[in-house]
Amino acid sequence: CLCSSGQPLVRAMSSAVSSPTYTTLAISHPAESVTHVELHRPEKRNAMSKAFWREMVDCFTELSRDPDCRVVLVSGAGRIFTAGIDLMDMASDVLQPQGDDTARVSWNLRQIISKYQETFSVIEKCPKPVVVAVHGACIGGGVDLITACDIRLCTQDAWFQVKEVDIGLAADVGTLQRLPKVIGSRSLVNDLALTARKMYADEAKSCGLVSRVFADKEAMMANALEMAGEIAARSPVAVQGTKINLLYARDHSVAEGLDYMATWNMSMLQTQDVMKSAQAAMEKKSPKTIVFSKL
Amino acid sequence: CLCSSGQPLVRAMSSAVSSPTYTTLAISHPAESVTHVELHRPEKRNAMSKAFWREMVDCFTELSRDPDCRVVLVSGAGRIFTAGIDLMDMASDVLQPQGDDTARVSWNLRQIISKYQETFSVIEKCPKPVVVAVHGACIGGGVDLITACDIRLCTQDAWFQVKEVDIGLAADVGTLQRLPKVIGSRSLVNDLALTARKMYADEAKSCGLVSRVFADKEAMMANALEMAGEIAARSPVAVQGTKINLLYARDHSVAEGLDYMATWNMSMLQTQDVMKSAQAAMEKKSPKTIVFSKL
Amino acid sequence: CLCSSGQPLVRAMSSAVSSPTYTTLAISHPAESVTHVELHRPEKRNAMSKAFWREMVDCFTELSRDPDCRVVLVSGAGRIFTAGIDLMDMASDVLQPQGDDTARVSWNLRQIISKYQETFSVIEKCPKPVVVAVHGACIGGGVDLITACDIRLCTQDAWFQVKEVDIGLAADVGTLQRLPKVIGSRSLVNDLALTARKMYADEAKSCGLVSRVFADKEAMMANALEMAGEIAARSPVAVQGTKINLLYARDHSVAEGLDYMATWNMSMLQTQDVMKSAQAAMEKKSPKTIVFSKL
Amino acid sequence: CLCSSGQPLVRAMSSAVSSPTYTTLAISHPAESVTHVELHRPEKRNAMSKAFWREMVDCFTELSRDPDCRVVLVSGAGRIFTAGIDLMDMASDVLQPQGDDTARVSWNLRQIISKYQETFSVIEKCPKPVVVAVHGACIGGGVDLITACDIRLCTQDAWFQVKEVDIGLAADVGTLQRLPKVIGSRSLVNDLALTARKMYADEAKSCGLVSRVFADKEAMMANALEMAGEIAARSPVAVQGTKINLLYARDHSVAEGLDYMATWNMSMLQTQDVMKSAQAAMEKKSPKTIVFSKL
Amino acid sequence: CLCSSGQPLVRAMSSAVSSPTYTTLAISHPAESVTHVELHRPEKRNAMSKAFWREMVDCFTELSRDPDCRVVLVSGAGRIFTAGIDLMDMASDVLQPQGDDTARVSWNLRQIISKYQETFSVIEKCPKPVVVAVHGACIGGGVDLITACDIRLCTQDAWFQVKEVDIGLAADVGTLQRLPKVIGSRSLVNDLALTARKMYADEAKSCGLVSRVFADKEAMMANALEMAGEIAARSPVAVQGTKINLLYARDHSVAEGLDYMATWNMSMLQTQDVMKSAQAAMEKKSPKTIVFSKL
Amino acid sequence: CLCSSGQPLVRAMSSAVSSPTYTTLAISHPAESVTHVELHRPEKRNAMSKAFWREMVDCFTELSRDPDCRVVLVSGAGRIFTAGIDLMDMASDVLQPQGDDTARVSWNLRQIISKYQETFSVIEKCPKPVVVAVHGACIGGGVDLITACDIRLCTQDAWFQVKEVDIGLAADVGTLQRLPKVIGSRSLVNDLALTARKMYADEAKSCGLVSRVFADKEAMMANALEMAGEIAARSPVAVQGTKINLLYARDHSVAEGLDYMATWNMSMLQTQDVMKSAQAAMEKKSPKTIVFSKL
Repeated sequence: CLCSSGQPLVRAMSSAVSSPTYTTLAISHPAESVTHVELHRPEKRNAMSKAFWREMVDCFTELSRDPDCRVVLVSGAGRIFTAGIDLMDMASDVLQPQGDDTARVSWNLRQIISKYQETFSVIEKCPKPVVVAVHGACIGGGVDLITACDIRLCTQDAWFQVKEVDIGLAADVGTLQRLPKVIGSRSLVNDLALTARKMYADEAKSCGLVSRVFADKEAMMANALEMAGEIAARSPVAVQGTKINLLYARDHSVAEGLDYMATWNMSMLQTQDVMKSAQAAMEKKSPKTIVFSKL
Repeated sequence: CLCSSGQPLVRAMSSAVSSPTYTTLAISHPAESVTHVELHRPEKRNAMSKAFWREMVDCFTELSRDPDCRVVLVSGAGRIFTAGIDLMDMASDVLQPQGDDTARVSWNLRQIISKYQETFSVIEKCPKPVVVAVHGACIGGGVDLITACDIRLCTQDAWFQVKEVDIGLAADVGTLQRLPKVIGSRSLVNDLALTARKMYADEAKSCGLVSRVFADKEAMMANALEMAGEIAARSPVAVQGTKINLLYARDHSVAEGLDYMATWNMSMLQTQDVMKSAQAAMEKKSPKTIVFSKL
Repeated sequence: CLCSSGQPLVRAMSSAVSSPTYTTLAISHPAESVTHVELHRPEKRNAMSKAFWREMVDCFTELSRDPDCRVVLVSGAGRIFTAGIDLMDMASDVLQPQGDDTARVSWNLRQIISKYQETFSVIEKCPKPVVVAVHGACIGGGVDLITACDIRLCTQDAWFQVKEVDIGLAADVGTLQRLPKVIGSRSLVNDLALTARKMYADEAKSCGLVSRVFADKEAMMANALEMAGEIAARSPVAVQGTKINLLYARDHSVAEGLDYMATWNMSMLQTQDVMKSAQAAMEKKSPKTIVFSKL
Repeated sequence: CLCSSGQPLVRAMSSAVSSPTYTTLAISHPAESVTHVELHRPEKRNAMSKAFWREMVDCFTELSRDPDCRVVLVSGAGRIFTAGIDLMDMASDVLQPQGDDTARVSWNLRQIISKYQETFSVIEKCPKPVVVAVHGACIGGGVDLITACDIRLCTQDAWFQVKEVDIGLAADVGTLQRLPKVIGSRSLVNDLALTARKMYADEAKSCGLVSRVFADKEAMMANALEMAGEIAARSPVAVQGTKINLLYARDHSVAEGLDYMATWNMSMLQTQDVMKSAQAAMEKKSPKTIVFSKL
Repeated sequence: CLCSSGQPLVRAMSSAVSSPTYTTLAISHPAESVTHVELHRPEKRNAMSKAFWREMVDCFTELSRDPDCRVVLVSGAGRIFTAGIDLMDMASDVLQPQGDDTARVSWNLRQIISKYQETFSVIEKCPKPVVVAVHGACIGGGVDLITACDIRLCTQDAWFQVKEVDIGLAADVGTLQRLPKVIGSRSLVNDLALTARKMYADEAKSCGLVSRVFADKEAMMANALEMAGEIAARSPVAVQGTKINLLYARDHSVAEGLDYMATWNMSMLQTQDVMKSAQAAMEKKSPKTIVFSKL
Repeated sequence: CLCSSGQPLVRAMSSAVSSPTYTTLAISHPAESVTHVELHRPEKRNAMSKAFWREMVDCFTELSRDPDCRVVLVSGAGRIFTAGIDLMDMASDVLQPQGDDTARVSWNLRQIISKYQETFSVIEKCPKPVVVAVHGACIGGGVDLITACDIRLCTQDAWFQVKEVDIGLAADVGTLQRLPKVIGSRSLVNDLALTARKMYADEAKSCGLVSRVFADKEAMMANALEMAGEIAARSPVAVQGTKINLLYARDHSVAEGLDYMATWNMSMLQTQDVMKSAQAAMEKKSPKTIVFSKL
């Protein structure tokens, strides 16, 4: 059983105290090789402050290198997933950029935007799969964040909003680039990005933004953890190679993707994991029984 | 209220007399900053004649430059959206191309095809969002047209047909290039393009070709106008930057899209619209109350 | 009637004896210009053996050149579509690759992977549309195969499984490259590829992997044959040009796709098929009544 | 003989009165199928004024369509080729751009830059080869212009200067994009663009910017005219197909260039010009004796 | 000494009788791991006949797989390198293509062009470096051939001619795609391709088409053989990986080339050749003393 | 005068003591806004040790951000520029990589290669122009380094060697990717990379690898410093925008480069530097008299 002695799972998972190094994220290890990254400023509806942007980069850079982490699960503490950018905290950067003339202000703004873009690109660059579980609202920067994750889940009460046009700007940290590659309906992408309307769980499921919807956060987190466990139980050589090649394929022609794949697997197929996995499969054993070397 | 005293909205919107400069299009301004472009040869089922191809280019070139236009709404007059290409009118171009030998005939045909492709590419190049509302049939060239628009709506009685293989040719003014980037199911794209079968509103909705379906044209036009109004009420810097970057992202890798976005926004974030919009948002005012400078 | 005197269609279609040249495929011609390629090792659940990989290349290379073939229909004999790779038969290649040092083993593995990739790439390179009809299980290499086909159909009892991570490797003969371009939900692609879970017919339909689902194999094959007949009845210049340009568009920007299309059609529009088709259309005759020259 | 009765060739070629439609260009037809476009504001050292930018587009658009033009020869009237941009005339556009806020000024500037870029891109889009002959100075915008031409010639006294950094801007109408694809030494490209130093004829020849150097303008023009005549005497199907495919190849991989080439020539090889040319070749006749149909 | 007892080297190298399987090529092994492919129809000035196109593909496909071949040296027998395409032999294919209508003729022509393009693309796909040594004339198809080779050498009396416009067509088997990526002066490329003029050895050297020029064929062949020996003496893992990655880099951005390189070398660096080579280097021994495993 | 009272310039420039933070680099500021980075392990012939790879990244990351640095000048201390990789120091990384199986060793090697690639990519990413001055030998990793710089100069006694095949590997930190884009002769690139032969100053100049050759180091450094001063005196907005767009153009089509350029300059043209520079130009003042704001 995933929940410890009657205590609801969600509370258990959230109970990890915010890591000493992070003030906006709480890191825990709910299962073997699974790292849980929780957006953790519930009193601010997990709004994305300056500290958050910095800590996300540090956190995922570290997870990329940590051989004990094979899957990352992202969720939000408190009542909603995230209210998006914390305008108050970030106003000085974005609304009052510095510079002696327009060109220099622009130059500085470009540095700032690139830095914020990097915040979510680190999620992609992390070779470990990232599962994100959304409950309640996921607004503005939140959509930028989840489109950079690999698998999206949500609760029945979740809603999503590409909010940026409402505050006079084109979304610039990933939504416009990734959302159209994440769902199949371009008409819907444009509708969402141009009208800033809310999209609820059912539409999110039917358009493919999320692959599963759950009754409530409790059910979602239990399921997300199980899914993370399934992934963590498989060969990290296979799993991380799969993520890397799926992302490569997104940005290249099929022919180029195949060429890269062959060049990748010419060494990766020489892993002992194939033999271990094949043997377990023939003996009808669960992958969870196999001990893979660290990667 | 959108409808003038009892008169149904659709009739009201259609009542704009065909503009003196256009014989196949009727242009009107149903709301502030919204331009309505109506395919207007109802007696010919809005079939696309030589004049139509020319006028579309003129019309959208003009709208691109018109600061009083922030959103375009496209629909068809009469019983259906469009019967597609007007074969009778265009036969001389396509069926009896000129040239002293095969190479020269080919050369001339290539000029003609490119010119017709441009007809719908101008819709994409127009930085203002284009919402298209389809009722009844949308055949052949009609599908080329709507896939170049940004948001697609239809009535419950609408149907779509990629007709070209039925007349012995591969669709060459946009459908084969854009349809697969507009809906998510490649199997369906191939099915439609290779069998020339009809697709009805429900399938069009579930595959994502259209993002909303309405009971009848009246309801659709009211809704389309409301949606256009929502978009027109937002910062044109934000809205047009969003369209341009969404299109850029379609044709580039995520990394390239992000780089372009940062380079775009380094100046566009310096608009007063951000401050105006942020203030209105904090004061819980509708974007419609903000006065943005023209773009 | 498609079925010969009471004998069920499926059996009739399967009754073609395995061609003398192929041991894993059975080739038949159920209708004019339609070639049926059946995976035909039912006693091995159509597992993909060394012979299969070789024969697929030979078969599709031949079909590409055969003017009497205008459409290909692929299905599986026996109880399921395919169990995927025949690990026993192929173990020596993949699990015990040769070479004097790691670099040389890698070099040889790359050759092998590239060769296997080519097995399914020939399906794409064949200019004739390929319709695949899946019943029962479609596992591992089966998914690589069907994503390289143009139109996918399945029975209500069908299921699909991207199996590779279960045996310790990243899928390397096409699934990771093509699946994301074949369905619209990236979250689902990642879910399937990283957890190796089964996906059933309903989800396959709603995500767009297949475009139609049928009650049973009998119904599916009848329908698939009818669809193949529809395609075969149309101008081969139009049909094959459509396939070629749809594939080109997948791997290029819209602008590049349009340019290629114009260059393609500058000669292809000069076919007599346009006149023949246009005339039949005006006379309300079925395309099946037209006699097109061979291509 | 190229020169009419003692009168020097250069004067003869320049004697064409400036066309009624153009104030900055003089158009003449020094030989059959050869059009001479002369930058013709000698009193202003052919500086590029607002009128110039507009007229270049008109001129090359017209030449693209004119079947009597098979080659274009560009040169400058007076003492130098061109002094580059006419800052006085263009200051209002570039130095005092309009707009209500920074974003709107930027938007307008982007329109202006794109328009000026188009001025030289029309040279590339014109399918007829463009030979440019430079004498004296070729400064700033002049380098943008000549890098968009196909063949570059110069006199011994010619010099070239990428001037833009000297006036505080990055060259934005083509030099930075085309110069590195036009000459082979990247170190030299950077040297020229970053220091704004002058490059003289010898270095221009050895680095490949120009393919031939002549003693003086008289010699250069005679030779340029002869070269233009050679090109004009060959099949326009061959010549223009060559230009189009060379440009395509520049911007694509070799594999993509080959594919496009095959698709191009599948119709163009069907020209009668091949038979006419082959026959003349076998009979050892000059191409100039062949009469090709217009293109 | 490279020449056997007084007999001139060239004659010795040419003395290999034409291989039983080839009628237009003579294959010999002048040194260990070096294969010499000689165009060998001297009585026809090595004109490229139908048999030649077929045999080149067979020959290089075989060399690609032959572990005893580490470098290929290509030259021409008789008085010149090659006169280019054998128009008489190929006229039926190119000048009288078959097909029931223009579209079908075009379709067939495209197949033919693609097949001929493949003739020289096999040279690129062969992972072993190909050194080509040109004497006398290298005309038309000869330029297509040599631009697909890796290193080009020539004699002082050599000349090169992009001949195709002279017979009414755009060069379609590689010159237009590869020549601009092989030399640095675009003006010169255009000059050569549009005027069909001859380029002699000195200009070929100064523009970089060839990297070395020799007094006569004897000297060139001796030197070419020495160069081939140098390459053949080095690690085949290093040499072939270098060729493959240089070609990859040509068609990709620097960032993509680096990524591919890292993915390539992650296995290739694990070769024993590094240790063997490093040791020889430290002991100041020639690479020729090292015995590398076959690849 | 550049040299302080009789003391030769080179010694003066080298006299900067190695910065406290770097052990392999010596940093100095020989002129305003010019930073001199000297490879400074003369006793080891500036061989690239582990510390060097790390310090280069730190150094250029810092220079990228330092507003007082507008140009970087790179040279080598002691008798030669660099002997390339320090095999002894790096053997453990490259020759004895860690990992439990081949896949894991490969994974780790890929991390290492990517890290080393980054060492030179930081030179490209640094928006300030980098001038490199080579004397004596530039071997192996040295070629990777200089191809990532913007302008290359050398002394008459300099020579260059792509050394990697000599130690059994394909050059993997940039040479194979950048060298072909830096010089115009592909035959020469292949010759150098496949035979590992030395190339001397004259050939380096004629092929365009370096843009200027000097009699000795003294002359070269004086000249390099003057060139750096020229660049440093110009608008940093113009200079750095030029570098960024030249690099962008290298990896994109001309059309894409132009689009990016327009989007870049729509803000950068709004710099006061244009007005300051234009005014100085009109007043015939040197750019060195202008005071530009920091960037």
